Amino acid sequence: AGNGANGKWADALDLYEVDLDMYKENREKLVSKLKARDDVICKDNSIALFQGGPAPTRYDSDHEPIFRQESNFSYLFGVKEPDVYGVIELESGRTTLFFPKLPESYAIVMGEIRSAESFKKEYAVDDVRFEPELRSFIEDLDPKVIYTTRGLNKDSGIYAKEAHYEGVENHRVDNGTLYDVIVECRVIKSAREIALMRHINKISSQAHCWIMTQAQPGMREFQLESLFEHWGYFRGGCRHRSYTSICGCGGNGSILHYGHAGAPNDGIIEPDDMCLLDMGAEYKCYTSDITCTFPVSGKFSDDQRAIYEAVLDAQWTVMRAMKPGVSYVDMHTLAYRVILTHLSKLGVVKGDIDEMLAADLGAVFMPHGLGHFMGLDTHDVGGRAKGLPVQTRPGYTSLRCCATLEPGMVLTVEPGVYFNDYSLDKALADDKQAHFIDADALKRFRNTGGIRLEDDVLVTETGVENMTQCPRAVDDVEAVLAGKLDYTSTFKSFS
Amino acid sequence: AGNGANGKWADALDLYEVDLDMYKENREKLVSKLKARDDVICKDNSIALFQGGPAPTRYDSDHEPIFRQESNFSYLFGVKEPDVYGVIELESGRTTLFFPKLPESYAIVMGEIRSAESFKKEYAVDDVRFEPELRSFIEDLDPKVIYTTRGLNKDSGIYAKEAHYEGVENHRVDNGTLYDVIVECRVIKSAREIALMRHINKISSQAHCWIMTQAQPGMREFQLESLFEHWGYFRGGCRHRSYTSICGCGGNGSILHYGHAGAPNDGIIEPDDMCLLDMGAEYKCYTSDITCTFPVSGKFSDDQRAIYEAVLDAQWTVMRAMKPGVSYVDMHTLAYRVILTHLSKLGVVKGDIDEMLAADLGAVFMPHGLGHFMGLDTHDVGGRAKGLPVQTRPGYTSLRCCATLEPGMVLTVEPGVYFNDYSLDKALADDKQAHFIDADALKRFRNTGGIRLEDDVLVTETGVENMTQCPRAVDDVEAVLAGKLDYTSTFKSFS
Ligand SMILES: [Mn+2]
Ligand SMILES: [Mn+2]
Repeated sequence: AGNGANGKWADALDLYEVDLDMYKENREKLVSKLKARDDVICKDNSIALFQGGPAPTRYDSDHEPIFRQESNFSYLFGVKEPDVYGVIELESGRTTLFFPKLPESYAIVMGEIRSAESFKKEYAVDDVRFEPELRSFIEDLDPKVIYTTRGLNKDSGIYAKEAHYEGVENHRVDNGTLYDVIVECRVIKSAREIALMRHINKISSQAHCWIMTQAQPGMREFQLESLFEHWGYFRGGCRHRSYTSICGCGGNGSILHYGHAGAPNDGIIEPDDMCLLDMGAEYKCYTSDITCTFPVSGKFSDDQRAIYEAVLDAQWTVMRAMKPGVSYVDMHTLAYRVILTHLSKLGVVKGDIDEMLAADLGAVFMPHGLGHFMGLDTHDVGGRAKGLPVQTRPGYTSLRCCATLEPGMVLTVEPGVYFNDYSLDKALADDKQAHFIDADALKRFRNTGGIRLEDDVLVTETGVENMTQCPRAVDDVEAVLAGKLDYTSTFKSFS
Repeated sequence: AGNGANGKWADALDLYEVDLDMYKENREKLVSKLKARDDVICKDNSIALFQGGPAPTRYDSDHEPIFRQESNFSYLFGVKEPDVYGVIELESGRTTLFFPKLPESYAIVMGEIRSAESFKKEYAVDDVRFEPELRSFIEDLDPKVIYTTRGLNKDSGIYAKEAHYEGVENHRVDNGTLYDVIVECRVIKSAREIALMRHINKISSQAHCWIMTQAQPGMREFQLESLFEHWGYFRGGCRHRSYTSICGCGGNGSILHYGHAGAPNDGIIEPDDMCLLDMGAEYKCYTSDITCTFPVSGKFSDDQRAIYEAVLDAQWTVMRAMKPGVSYVDMHTLAYRVILTHLSKLGVVKGDIDEMLAADLGAVFMPHGLGHFMGLDTHDVGGRAKGLPVQTRPGYTSLRCCATLEPGMVLTVEPGVYFNDYSLDKALADDKQAHFIDADALKRFRNTGGIRLEDDVLVTETGVENMTQCPRAVDDVEAVLAGKLDYTSTFKSFS
């Protein structure tokens, strides 16, 4: 069926086969970290007990949103189904999954009722059983301690729910240790995780490049979101996005989380607009997070170029400075320094850069953090872990990663400059900040909106590897916009 | 920017502007129904109190899935933002919305902090205030009774959560009446609701027609899902789908809720497959629900055509019989009768049709209900309301609408024939059913999978209006598949 023009669509699919050893390695890493701790009892059949996410419904209706596995559970087991338990015996590392026991009649609604053997093959664990056996399985083991994950997610302020089943209360349960250890594991990505994340970044990068050739004045912002979703799913099998797409064109680009239900990317793109597109596909619960900003006209105006190059200089300067041992908080400051230096040359700010930094002028133009860990969550865990320096200054309080860099960390580098009225008016009314700002020069840029450039990088032994491959230099961006440089077909393949 | 080939993309957008009177009418209808009841006290400042859906986060992370308003709240107020309260004063119908009070600094993250006036203009209610005023507003009113919605959703078995705020416990609250009255309201659609639902059905119908021209062997099933999502969002501004898309090709077509996380439309389409695509776009929280089934080869085989025409005959026979006063339960039986008659001609079943119906043979081949109410939920409320006949027989227990038809009802008509191994093997092992089945003749069809045809109809004064416009007759389907009949451009417009 269908017309010949689409003969290539089946071939367009670029799926990535995850090596199941990735999850096995993750479990082994967790067990070895637990064994290394004085405060964890691994002997006498102690176990770590995990409960995957439940099947959701919307309010009181029978509408079932598509299930997305809880990230820790996905990290350890890679299980795509809801309502599953996982048990890791800490001495041996032996892993057993417990799937819900479905009545035979569900075969009509949900498909063939799968055997334990079939799940065992799919997930390469030591054993698979069904949920009604969980209680007696654990009672038979008679574990010294059951470790569960209750812990505070520092980005959301929400506590992770620990695993629970009827009967767990008869055992000694430690819910205060495991969460932090998993966080520690997740901060450093393994070679297999990195390979997968490179792939997802490739899919998302290609989608961004394609959209640059498709954006036109007169379109609604959400049409770009739709193009992105389609590329990711149709070509990459990415059914989920890493986060709600931010498609802020013109003034909307200055709203950091534009795109939410109250401001659903429904603006019309004007001929002179910059398009700030922050969109990332997700695959097998691993994320990507990329922002491109470009003039929909195809050509940067002088002012657009000036601000763009300030952001780009900040991004590249930071990436050149990043390597093991470097504090990411210092990188945040470095980005502010570069941005303020550019704004100073443009006459928007005036005075000594160090004094501006001391007066928190950086946060006026970039009121968010330079970046964050990225992995199974877009704002991945661990960036504000115990022992890391707590930030209190404007801009820095939004910095989701305050760690010292180590090889294997994956972070976003996403400096930006925004002309947000609230932020600017507040600075102009502040005695400590106003005298640094040339209000007249500023006026010229007020409607520029925002420019952000966001790449995802891996910290290596000597520096960083940029997993994102989108045009960044002004000439490259304009060439892609003009259709003269095909980033989607000449894309460097990592895999 | 971009190449000229896509100049039409901005024009491709077909948005529908909802008349705000739609929500006003819905509120007036609710109030007038409450006033007509003996057991409701409308005087002495009684109010109906509603709480919209909360802003969600995923597990403990700061990931925020895109908010979708709770259906009753959307029905009455059309508010797209989370965390809003609504108060309707029952004597006057006066309506006040209470939005969350956001700190000024949120302007950087969420966009301009909107004034009460701006929300009032957007939602055309009598007054808009902020949530901190809710308690004193209600205390000042000193209502005789506060009516809230706690009630059992009969499709999910889940209770609706009633509105709550700190202090409501100081008032007389009736949580047992309002829910049923809203259900009663929602069952009969107004002219404005119907116009909106026609529009959404048009968008979804077009998407289905387009996909028929794009499907090819070798594609993954989810690529068709992606095409559907893209058409709906890119052309129709439909950010949500009404339900998880079911793209069951070949044998997968016999799994009624295929497409869930455990079976995520990831099969590869084979050259001889029938594609059963059950997909519906959602717009402004109103749904559509359409199923097309077609041979990916472009041509029906004799067997495929025979089963297809059995289903089509059932669908059209039912639609011709539907009109006010007719029981939808009887329509379900009628569909069984037509299907069994066709299967009898094919030699798959043998014997007297009435005896087969008495032996529940219909449910062997169509183990789901003929259809359901559709509106703000795909499986809309009210189909199993109090007083309607409770079903106990196979197949009928899955019938989500047991009502007698009235003008203004919107329902799906979705007969199907499935060759589901579980269902067939069970029948062959059942003394009461096996003798009706010719096991040898059945073998020929075992791999046919499933065929379902689903249209969305409005009950009129004299019959039904079919809002769905997809090719149904075999010749039309084949013509669309061959690219000889363009259903997307010649689409009859309702609006
Ligand atoms: Mn980011
Ligand atoms: Mn349906």
